[in-house]
Amino acid sequence: MKLQIAFDMVNAETGLKLVSEIHDVIDIVEVGTPMIVREGMFAVRLFKASYPNVIVLADVKIVDGGDIESADAFEAGADLVTVLAVAEDATIQSVIHTAKKHGNQVMADLICIQDVEKRAQELDKMGVDYVCVHTAHDVQNSGKTPFDELKRVMAVLKNAKAAVAGGINQQTIPLVKQFGPEIVVAGAALTKAANLRAAVLEMKNAIG
Amino acid sequence: MKLQIAFDMVNAETGLKLVSEIHDVIDIVEVGTPMIVREGMFAVRLFKASYPNVIVLADVKIVDGGDIESADAFEAGADLVTVLAVAEDATIQSVIHTAKKHGNQVMADLICIQDVEKRAQELDKMGVDYVCVHTAHDVQNSGKTPFDELKRVMAVLKNAKAAVAGGINQQTIPLVKQFGPEIVVAGAALTKAANLRAAVLEMKNAIG
Repeated sequence: MKLQIAFDMVNAETGLKLVSEIHDVIDIVEVGTPMIVREGMFAVRLFKASYPNVIVLADVKIVDGGDIESADAFEAGADLVTVLAVAEDATIQSVIHTAKKHGNQVMADLICIQDVEKRAQELDKMGVDYVCVHTAHDVQNSGKTPFDELKRVMAVLKNAKAAVAGGINQQTIPLVKQFGPEIVVAGAALTKAANLRAAVLEMKNAIG
Repeated sequence: MKLQIAFDMVNAETGLKLVSEIHDVIDIVEVGTPMIVREGMFAVRLFKASYPNVIVLADVKIVDGGDIESADAFEAGADLVTVLAVAEDATIQSVIHTAKKHGNQVMADLICIQDVEKRAQELDKMGVDYVCVHTAHDVQNSGKTPFDELKRVMAVLKNAKAAVAGGINQQTIPLVKQFGPEIVVAGAALTKAANLRAAVLEMKNAIG
């Protein structure tokens, strides 16, 4: 399993400082949607210019304009871009096409999808690289977790690999490990730790 | 009817030049999603700092983190922010709450919603200010238009007002006028005109 750290509530400069502490041990650095809303592709550019070996995911959550928005992210230096699974197939196919042209990858985010198995199968057939099971931040305090959906989605994927996001922390890692998705996304559980590098190393060790 | 001009494929500085040509005649200036992906809230800040009287809509298309992302847009100077109708109700309610706190407004975008009437009714009850019927850019070349959905949505709205977007141009304005939504969104039909101000005035005149 790979560990993806999501930066949401920091600005690009603070994010760069955090990246400097973990660039050699983290698998994927996510420039989160709130960072993009505030600063656009600035953080993607900054991280990639400073640490070219770090794999950067731009969590654009594309829902239209698939070619335009993914090309912008890839040209800024993103290795992976996200598209919403709720988007039209034409949008998703356009993002996949643009990613291939750039030698990059696509993660489809199942957030707000009702029938996750059906859509995961469709996304798999379309050729996305990753399908991310994702419990929305805004409903996490209802106790909802992504684990049941993760199990069901992993059972239907043939080529795409699974990722999981939404309130993942040290306590829920054993559950994640049980299913073994390719990518585990953690945000606050890492970024709010007193010692970021130690927290990343501990979680990497825990996912094995 | 109000005219909203959508800027998508320009950078903030070019956008500002365009705003300078039409600030006294345009009803709403939209900072489009591709602009936000590239430059974050920079254009919103720039437009509002230069033309405080211009009404600015930030087309963030929020799908999670409703409070965080809408607050960022409002603090940058946006008067209106968009949320995806496909988002969880908790997200939409959070955006509405944050908008009220800031004295601002919310437009819910029906893009990728299958049962537009049902969702429009729910959005109306939740208290969004505008419900936007929106044919995705990526499927416009299939000949799909938003007009049939516009009619059906307008029939069910009680408090929220309707907006329409997706390939609106001088030729389709008579059709829009037939339904009379509160807001008409036009992008390329205006921004690609040889004379922007003349095109805006002409379309404003056409919608009456």
